[in-house]
Amino acid sequence: MMGSPKNLNETFLPNVANGIKDASKITIGIIGSGDFAKSLTIRLIRCGYHVVVGSRNPKLAAEVFPHVVDVTHHEDAVAKTNIIFVAIHREHYASLWDLKHLLAGKILIDVSNNTRVDQYPDSNAEYLASLFPDSLIVKGFNVVSAWSLQLGPKDASRQVYICSNNVQARHQVIELARQLSFIPIDLGALSSSREIENLPLRLFTLWKGPVVIAISLATFFFIYSFIRDVIHPYVRNQQSDFYKIPIEIVNKTLPIVAITLLSLVYLSGLIAAAYQLYYGTKYRRFPPWLDNWLQCRKQLGLLSFFFATVHVAYSLCLPMRRSERYLFLNMAYQQVHANVENSWNEEEVWRIEMYISFGIMSLGLLSLLAVTSIPSVNTALNWREFSFIQSTLGYVALLISTFHVLIYGWKRAFEEEYYRFYTPPNFVLALVLPSIVILGKIILLLPCVSRKLRRIRRGWEKSHVIEEASGSVPHLSPERITVM
Amino acid sequence: MMGSPKNLNETFLPNVANGIKDASKITIGIIGSGDFAKSLTIRLIRCGYHVVVGSRNPKLAAEVFPHVVDVTHHEDAVAKTNIIFVAIHREHYASLWDLKHLLAGKILIDVSNNTRVDQYPDSNAEYLASLFPDSLIVKGFNVVSAWSLQLGPKDASRQVYICSNNVQARHQVIELARQLSFIPIDLGALSSSREIENLPLRLFTLWKGPVVIAISLATFFFIYSFIRDVIHPYVRNQQSDFYKIPIEIVNKTLPIVAITLLSLVYLSGLIAAAYQLYYGTKYRRFPPWLDNWLQCRKQLGLLSFFFATVHVAYSLCLPMRRSERYLFLNMAYQQVHANVENSWNEEEVWRIEMYISFGIMSLGLLSLLAVTSIPSVNTALNWREFSFIQSTLGYVALLISTFHVLIYGWKRAFEEEYYRFYTPPNFVLALVLPSIVILGKIILLLPCVSRKLRRIRRGWEKSHVIEEASGSVPHLSPERITVM
Amino acid sequence: MMGSPKNLNETFLPNVANGIKDASKITIGIIGSGDFAKSLTIRLIRCGYHVVVGSRNPKLAAEVFPHVVDVTHHEDAVAKTNIIFVAIHREHYASLWDLKHLLAGKILIDVSNNTRVDQYPDSNAEYLASLFPDSLIVKGFNVVSAWSLQLGPKDASRQVYICSNNVQARHQVIELARQLSFIPIDLGALSSSREIENLPLRLFTLWKGPVVIAISLATFFFIYSFIRDVIHPYVRNQQSDFYKIPIEIVNKTLPIVAITLLSLVYLSGLIAAAYQLYYGTKYRRFPPWLDNWLQCRKQLGLLSFFFATVHVAYSLCLPMRRSERYLFLNMAYQQVHANVENSWNEEEVWRIEMYISFGIMSLGLLSLLAVTSIPSVNTALNWREFSFIQSTLGYVALLISTFHVLIYGWKRAFEEEYYRFYTPPNFVLALVLPSIVILGKIILLLPCVSRKLRRIRRGWEKSHVIEEASGSVPHLSPERITVM
Repeated sequence: MMGSPKNLNETFLPNVANGIKDASKITIGIIGSGDFAKSLTIRLIRCGYHVVVGSRNPKLAAEVFPHVVDVTHHEDAVAKTNIIFVAIHREHYASLWDLKHLLAGKILIDVSNNTRVDQYPDSNAEYLASLFPDSLIVKGFNVVSAWSLQLGPKDASRQVYICSNNVQARHQVIELARQLSFIPIDLGALSSSREIENLPLRLFTLWKGPVVIAISLATFFFIYSFIRDVIHPYVRNQQSDFYKIPIEIVNKTLPIVAITLLSLVYLSGLIAAAYQLYYGTKYRRFPPWLDNWLQCRKQLGLLSFFFATVHVAYSLCLPMRRSERYLFLNMAYQQVHANVENSWNEEEVWRIEMYISFGIMSLGLLSLLAVTSIPSVNTALNWREFSFIQSTLGYVALLISTFHVLIYGWKRAFEEEYYRFYTPPNFVLALVLPSIVILGKIILLLPCVSRKLRRIRRGWEKSHVIEEASGSVPHLSPERITVM
Repeated sequence: MMGSPKNLNETFLPNVANGIKDASKITIGIIGSGDFAKSLTIRLIRCGYHVVVGSRNPKLAAEVFPHVVDVTHHEDAVAKTNIIFVAIHREHYASLWDLKHLLAGKILIDVSNNTRVDQYPDSNAEYLASLFPDSLIVKGFNVVSAWSLQLGPKDASRQVYICSNNVQARHQVIELARQLSFIPIDLGALSSSREIENLPLRLFTLWKGPVVIAISLATFFFIYSFIRDVIHPYVRNQQSDFYKIPIEIVNKTLPIVAITLLSLVYLSGLIAAAYQLYYGTKYRRFPPWLDNWLQCRKQLGLLSFFFATVHVAYSLCLPMRRSERYLFLNMAYQQVHANVENSWNEEEVWRIEMYISFGIMSLGLLSLLAVTSIPSVNTALNWREFSFIQSTLGYVALLISTFHVLIYGWKRAFEEEYYRFYTPPNFVLALVLPSIVILGKIILLLPCVSRKLRRIRRGWEKSHVIEEASGSVPHLSPERITVM
Repeated sequence: MMGSPKNLNETFLPNVANGIKDASKITIGIIGSGDFAKSLTIRLIRCGYHVVVGSRNPKLAAEVFPHVVDVTHHEDAVAKTNIIFVAIHREHYASLWDLKHLLAGKILIDVSNNTRVDQYPDSNAEYLASLFPDSLIVKGFNVVSAWSLQLGPKDASRQVYICSNNVQARHQVIELARQLSFIPIDLGALSSSREIENLPLRLFTLWKGPVVIAISLATFFFIYSFIRDVIHPYVRNQQSDFYKIPIEIVNKTLPIVAITLLSLVYLSGLIAAAYQLYYGTKYRRFPPWLDNWLQCRKQLGLLSFFFATVHVAYSLCLPMRRSERYLFLNMAYQQVHANVENSWNEEEVWRIEMYISFGIMSLGLLSLLAVTSIPSVNTALNWREFSFIQSTLGYVALLISTFHVLIYGWKRAFEEEYYRFYTPPNFVLALVLPSIVILGKIILLLPCVSRKLRRIRRGWEKSHVIEEASGSVPHLSPERITVM
């Protein structure tokens, strides 16, 4: 009994079953015979679908497709199926115009990509939709490479973005994507297709601003240090310290950039809080520049960490240098000649011990911040844990690095000889932003201010109070936006 | 009407296919008009659902919702739909009491969170279920922030935990979560709701024990070294070595904590093995303390790695210190005055070269262990690979770090002058646990012991033998529990 | 015909819900009563299924299963269900022979593992299929540990590989896996079962080649340096430099291995490009050795990074050594005795400053390459970003490390004293491969060559031109294969 699978299926199973039961009977059409078409065909066959390929030159194309595939001309292919991948160039879309009546009511999946961001005024999918208004246009699969289609599901990037104005068509394509072992992500209406088409062309969008800022800061402080530490002694005493350029000057630049970037991370949150306090509501949109700033805090933080670690690498290399050795030998020579038995200077000893100690501590904390920025580590944390590390530990790291700089400066900020060419020493500049941020944070922590802010973030507004639902329910908390 | 779930199911619900087919016809209700309700509404509309919002003050609330949404009073909203998100405070649940008859047989999704772990004797969802015994209560979506609901599926944390006593209701909500592009995770019966509600409140649960242990060890050994290396010379010779506190004393503390934590990781496995050998079975539960210990081995290991790297950072900074420079210059002065042409000490040279060499090796191995602890790297490994790195390489790392300490100590463990105040030197204490663990492992590797253990782990029991199924089938191997 | 989507939907689409609706009524059978069977049972019950367990000794087995489970003998269990997990050893498969008639038409899920790769001529699942040709054999769930089945979905590795010759049976098991909160991955026909069974046994498959190469290179260069730097001075001047073995010799070996491995990463891409240029097509398969080489570039790159960082660790430890201190003191002594006030050597100073500077830069770039190799970071990048980092930044890193070596060598490559035993100094050998790769890349960047290559990679062929579809559509670009 229960011999045939069909029987089996009807009696107790399932499920996907109906769709799946017919999976082997479903025919998917593909227009085009390029690499993407080929790879897609292989994957579809593997998952039990029939495939019919429409080509302008079926005979030639048939050679490169598996034998079970029905390679035919466009019209024939379109007639045989209801769900069709359009795997040809945008420029050739118009060539399907004659098949308009055949395509009516069918699902057309636009898988095309462009070569530049916003290459055309409308997205390819919207263009296709304008050509075939009676078809159900779905955008999708464009982020998938032919390569990953063939290699199969072991490949890392399995997310497929899908959008369409027709909810049913969209859901059918989502289900198809799932059957092909992709992770479909529903982006709603076809107006998202521009965004989807730009996805594979995007190049570190969120990194651009922070990188430009970092490079500008680095350039400025490099020149600043160069003038003070190389040009100044050369002009004054004809002393040639050009050997300092590759390491010492660079190593004076890096930490200033690092601590400035770290301050910028938290400064944005402070400004957002001030904005909310000023307007007395959390429902007013932040101005665009603040919004963008808030959004790229992770990038600013990671860049800060990068500069800090490179600063550490340079510092650790200092004792390896030949220059250090020569200076050392000369000092030994002089000590012997001056007949100084003990050159110990307790104050200098303490300055450097404390300086190094604070440096290691702040690097340790920054490392924790950096590790929790790895996406999969991040996902494993809940909101409270993430907030503790990014906000609390982050501020502690900023505080400790500020001490690190302060101790480095010691009392030299008040000695005239360090104001060469009437410019303040680097470490004084490095302290400007961190001091502002720490001061701002202290103000925000004052009971009167923090109480008001907490109330605003729970939905309270100057004008009227929305009473319902927001306390214990997770809510669009600006805390989640502003604090980091 | 619509009393029985069966009925319910046939009349309106998924059938995801039906669901999908009718997606645009399904109406989802939301009680509450806070931030979560707003964001959820936006996501639901985007995915093609109709949304009806029940508010205590519909006119006011309607202003902040999109125009397509039907914002009405509670009773009306509940009447219009069969699946309802309850997005209000637990304290207001009772206010829905009047609608009890309308809510019967409908799915109520409790999305609430608490502000403290185990805030109430029962979970919010269980409380809701007790108020409305005729409704189908589902717990879920509470780990999702309103923020991530709005931002959409590109956000990292897409996992949604769902539980319910009603299997059908649970699966409908699971399917709904999938439609909204979340990754639903089925946690079974409603008794899991307490666990789900505690999830967003959990703060490094598994880290607490290891961090407390690490801090206690660090405090003890810091004081221990302080007394031996600063107080002792001060008391004996009035020698002021207080400058050693920030770096040298700290750097004597860190490695001991690191190697002790690493030993603790493997000690738990050894004790578990001994336990199994003693009772002659793997089916006896471990005592709770051992279970907890086994569960936080990853955290112990990562803390050990953290202390080890900070130890490395401190050690590398040693030559940068001013104190080192002064001592050096003084040595040069003395060498010149004593007229010693060559101060080379072959034994000292070898000691330090070997010491550093073993240190780098063990750090290299610990780094590999740490990298494979990153969740996404971890996932890419199969069980054998993970076990090779965590168990085999881990023991090798422990062995090498033990050598690292042994060589550091050299023969000083037998010289009286190192037993200040009659206390043994730090490195002797550092060797206690590692030696025990290595000895224990050697005993476990003895053929007679290891054979018996292997038999036990394959399901053999002292009393009787379960014959069936366990050799080649992957089994609940205590190896996977005990070895790390 | 088939105009309306509604129509379309009814004819072919899934209908997950039917399955879901009946979830609580479905009975799943399990043959075997070992650990895997127990854990699977717990998970199935939790997700609302009925479970019937077939055991050779039902009375004994019933004790260890939850009470709601029907533990019975094999025949009875098989009769009660249509979908059966076979959780017994391959050796016991034949014992089910008597139930052949009962098993006909039913789904049998083979969850077995082997203890060695390719242990049997056929896979366990294929063997099962040969025994029961009338049953629907599905392979799957073998990568899941009983442990992770019990612990539930919070466990990291949730991917389950599934294959079967019967499309419907496969999809039913896929759906079942999804219901159990696993991520099913469809690997097609049962012929994949061998691959699936080998998955948990695989031990760093892609790492083997690169590790063997790295170890061979390391051994060779270690001996080479040992002969040149320890044996040579001993033979010539009876100078005992054996103390150099643990650190200095190792630290001369590591960077050569690192830069050679990095060159090998990019050399494979160059050879692939040359191959395509020579044959004038991208459709010709690469020879197997090149294919394997291309596939393990990530591993080569990560090993290169590992060797580079260990080289850095060794280098940073150099100033900490006792030997360094003694040599230094002796130099100070000599400087004083020779009465040289200033030992400054501008050329040496510049050489080391530049050398260190380039070293840090290339390490910084290699770190970026390594970080983007973490799977979850990798996934967050699109193709262009990944290609920019791995290809562009990678070549820059190679170029800078080549400078690093060149500056280290300075003009010593032309001084006879460095050609001990008539062998060239290490850094000369280190430069061989990088120079070849950089030269090759320059040739590929020549306009005439790069234009031709680009044409080939867009699908152009020497013999004939396939016109259709490949430009803007993402295609099986060998760029994605060859460049890294």
